[in-house]
Amino acid sequence: MNRPQPIEKMVEIIKKLPGIGPKMAERLSYHILKMPSGEIEKLIDAIQKARQTLRYCSSCFNLSESDPCPVCSDSQRERGIICVVETPQDLIAVSKAKDYKGLYFVLGGALSPLDAVGPQDIRIDKLLKRLKSDNISEVILATDTDSKGETTALYLAEIIKPMGITVTRLGYGLPVGGDIEYADELTISRAISGRKEM
Amino acid sequence: MNRPQPIEKMVEIIKKLPGIGPKMAERLSYHILKMPSGEIEKLIDAIQKARQTLRYCSSCFNLSESDPCPVCSDSQRERGIICVVETPQDLIAVSKAKDYKGLYFVLGGALSPLDAVGPQDIRIDKLLKRLKSDNISEVILATDTDSKGETTALYLAEIIKPMGITVTRLGYGLPVGGDIEYADELTISRAISGRKEM
Repeated sequence: MNRPQPIEKMVEIIKKLPGIGPKMAERLSYHILKMPSGEIEKLIDAIQKARQTLRYCSSCFNLSESDPCPVCSDSQRERGIICVVETPQDLIAVSKAKDYKGLYFVLGGALSPLDAVGPQDIRIDKLLKRLKSDNISEVILATDTDSKGETTALYLAEIIKPMGITVTRLGYGLPVGGDIEYADELTISRAISGRKEM
Repeated sequence: MNRPQPIEKMVEIIKKLPGIGPKMAERLSYHILKMPSGEIEKLIDAIQKARQTLRYCSSCFNLSESDPCPVCSDSQRERGIICVVETPQDLIAVSKAKDYKGLYFVLGGALSPLDAVGPQDIRIDKLLKRLKSDNISEVILATDTDSKGETTALYLAEIIKPMGITVTRLGYGLPVGGDIEYADELTISRAISGRKEM
């Protein structure tokens, strides 16, 4: 026998979620069926509430319940520095480091010629507009260190530098708590060229 | 900044699903937020429909839209053999092999003393009741081959054999398409003792 049609449908939708294969989708579907109905209602409620209440901040495109978002409306922050990240999740990760007191800009992705994601598909225009209208002295490029993030950083640096704005990139090196044995060569060579006197 | 409260709530619920850690839960939550609303409605609809229409077959405890389920109501099947599985997913996997023409029984789990799952927590009583009332000549134990499944099979064999019913266990050996190099010792020794003349 095949899976009953209603489960088939759940699996069909769930397996399209990122990082979830057909087996995992099946496992999740059967699990969801067995969950107490209160739990399911809570999940559906949470999804609906999140989708209703969250919006993009019109200044940095962070996801937030308010516009401008709590970061942009925080008067304690330095308004002359912008940290450019790919996603709202990246913004939260950087903000947890607590060393950075400037503002942010969420691109909403990274350039990826292979996936046909060009400059018009992420918020590069909006970033440039903001750089022109606000008085920005430094842009920190905190895109991912994979090839898409690197491409995006190079592309942005080339456009932003001629505007007279300092462009920096997050430092490369060994992750804290990491084991040198397992670090890849590229990371080690970046860590060597970025070495500091103790 | 922390994650906005509505996302936090989604992550909180999603990370309780099996096989999903906090990072994956975050990734899924942000993905769900970005999905077109039609897609979300489809997912919620599918979950609700599956939960409303699916029930346990009162004979084999398979999940089905009808009771008895399509397998139990199939008059072509041999009614004297029962294949005992742990979950409805296992039933579907066995039925896909197509060699088996008998009926099934879904235990709804496996014995696991460490997790405090005893005989009263799975459908052992109901299985024994069915074995007594129906005219069953053979029970095939198709529980998993992990320690829980093995324990359950041994426990069931000990109870069912005295009832004069033949008890068999699925054959062990190398999985088809597998690489001997990567098979574990126990599987190889089971495959050797289960070798067949060609």
